[in-house]
Amino acid sequence: MNLAPPSTALADFVAVIPAGGVGSRLWPLSQPHRPKFLLDLLGTGTTLIQDTVDRLAPLATQTLVVTGQRHAEAVRAQLPQLAADALITEPSPRDSMAAIALAAAIIQHRHGDRVMGSFAADHVIGEPETFRATVATAVAAARKGKLVTIGIAPTEPSPAFGYIAQGGPADDAPGAFDVKEFTEKPDVETATRMLADGGYVWNAGMFVVRTTVLLGHLQGLQPSLFMGVNEIAAAWDTDQRATVVERVWPTLTKIAIDNAIAEPVAAQGGVVVVPGHFDWHDVGDFDSLIGLLSADADGVTRVGRSAPVATFQASGATVVGGTKPIAIVGIDNAVVVETDEAILVLGREASQVVKDAAAAL
Amino acid sequence: MNLAPPSTALADFVAVIPAGGVGSRLWPLSQPHRPKFLLDLLGTGTTLIQDTVDRLAPLATQTLVVTGQRHAEAVRAQLPQLAADALITEPSPRDSMAAIALAAAIIQHRHGDRVMGSFAADHVIGEPETFRATVATAVAAARKGKLVTIGIAPTEPSPAFGYIAQGGPADDAPGAFDVKEFTEKPDVETATRMLADGGYVWNAGMFVVRTTVLLGHLQGLQPSLFMGVNEIAAAWDTDQRATVVERVWPTLTKIAIDNAIAEPVAAQGGVVVVPGHFDWHDVGDFDSLIGLLSADADGVTRVGRSAPVATFQASGATVVGGTKPIAIVGIDNAVVVETDEAILVLGREASQVVKDAAAAL
Repeated sequence: MNLAPPSTALADFVAVIPAGGVGSRLWPLSQPHRPKFLLDLLGTGTTLIQDTVDRLAPLATQTLVVTGQRHAEAVRAQLPQLAADALITEPSPRDSMAAIALAAAIIQHRHGDRVMGSFAADHVIGEPETFRATVATAVAAARKGKLVTIGIAPTEPSPAFGYIAQGGPADDAPGAFDVKEFTEKPDVETATRMLADGGYVWNAGMFVVRTTVLLGHLQGLQPSLFMGVNEIAAAWDTDQRATVVERVWPTLTKIAIDNAIAEPVAAQGGVVVVPGHFDWHDVGDFDSLIGLLSADADGVTRVGRSAPVATFQASGATVVGGTKPIAIVGIDNAVVVETDEAILVLGREASQVVKDAAAAL
Repeated sequence: MNLAPPSTALADFVAVIPAGGVGSRLWPLSQPHRPKFLLDLLGTGTTLIQDTVDRLAPLATQTLVVTGQRHAEAVRAQLPQLAADALITEPSPRDSMAAIALAAAIIQHRHGDRVMGSFAADHVIGEPETFRATVATAVAAARKGKLVTIGIAPTEPSPAFGYIAQGGPADDAPGAFDVKEFTEKPDVETATRMLADGGYVWNAGMFVVRTTVLLGHLQGLQPSLFMGVNEIAAAWDTDQRATVVERVWPTLTKIAIDNAIAEPVAAQGGVVVVPGHFDWHDVGDFDSLIGLLSADADGVTRVGRSAPVATFQASGATVVGGTKPIAIVGIDNAVVVETDEAILVLGREASQVVKDAAAAL
């Protein structure tokens, strides 16, 4: 097992970046018209999708982004380096299996068999060298015909992620391990038990697989979805695209890739996991976002904000965005988010329920 | 003692309304350019100074407002009924004695001896009939040469007000009582003891007195201030006003009427108190403001606000002003104030320290 990253791109590797999901627990920062992946969430000067593309660029010969039609313009603006034919737009969300399968079918149709790696557009990943070495290990395993997932060593019994039960070393795939089982998001007690037992990693939704292997599984497990994406892929680079998409896309089965393929193929012994030892964050809510940031000298954490902030009897304050002076008085661990559209005043501990407030407004 | 209000105005009675004080614990609603008295604080459709003038109108033959030059235009706009010569503007704040003494001297100069009553422009008073009956009782006592204060029966051991120790019934002034002593704002323990002892009323800063009596006390106790306001009053209705004000006003002693006159005259037995049994509120901070309001059906108290508010795990929320949708999540008793200039996020219990936040921003 060699964890040094490859010095050049892997000739058969195509990065696929499904860019969907609003990130509604980050409302009002994220909103349907301005999803999480388009945000410079950490205030680094680059957005999450830009970071994702940059992180994969040294490894991939090409990168495809799959996103909703309403976000196509914003994605193009943020990713000027993207090839003209590298943006795959969905007329409506039909869950992750349709998005990834369409990308696979288009790659297959254009180039023949390739190794594709699917990586969410809105995760925060540190240690990019380690990340790329892990992906390279996964690509090598995928070449052997495996559906390869990258698992993250859990740091806490989080109920926010799915878990993967890791078995022994995989045959003929150095650095990869058999997958015994996928477990959907557990409760905290179950997660605590899994961490105590050991042998579990987080399912970070990263899949690396040969297009023929993925499409083969799809054909067996979701034949109508397989036929649908193939029909669209065949028309994609022709003047028939719009007509075929309009007719076929709405008929595609809405299902997550975990349920459609990963779980049943794992049960057949066809999935392996490569443990990832890089820093990985889903950043699903303000609590986890704040956990990644540092407070200024005055004890206030600022995200995308330069206007004045004053606090009195208010420790652990976070202020996100906005241009008006803000004073926080007499509330600890307050999170104040101001956008053009709305204001959120949040107790950090309640970050998980922001989604409900967003839904109500 | 007759507490029925007079059916017509008291021919010798002039209402004086000193309109000063920012109300800085109500920041950012109140600000130096938009002081508390100009606000429709209770959302009734009228501002505090409008309410004050309306409350006194049935009683007074004329009403004078004393305010800073910077607020003259706003006061005129809010009080179109005010006579042309009824607005007395101060070029700079020189505390309450200068403001009230100048009004007294101008009245004296224009009309000779009158009974004047001074009432803050930014208090909230219910039961106006009872209020006017109390003032009428005070006017009757003032005619006898007393400096008359109206005392409020305390409802709690508040450290926010001065207290008046009430003695026996005053000679020759039905409904009035001798004043033994003025006590400046006490600590809560002292206030609790005073309430337990009984015989104390809050000093609400309402003074009713003949202009000759007030100016006589001033002449004895603050002779230079007496000379100064007389010099300004003599020039007030002439083309010399600006010149004299510019020269004399900055030389006037800065002192509160309580310290300059009420306390020393009380020690000489010259002050009486008429207890007021009407509803009275200083409304000095958001906590006391919210105490006067009712929550809507959704449990949210709204002040000058119609834009959407959503709360989750957030009881006792108050939202003041603003036009953006606001969500409050996971914080109880939160007060969110949005103005054009700033946002305040406040734990209601910390209402007293808002002033410090305002000062910092």
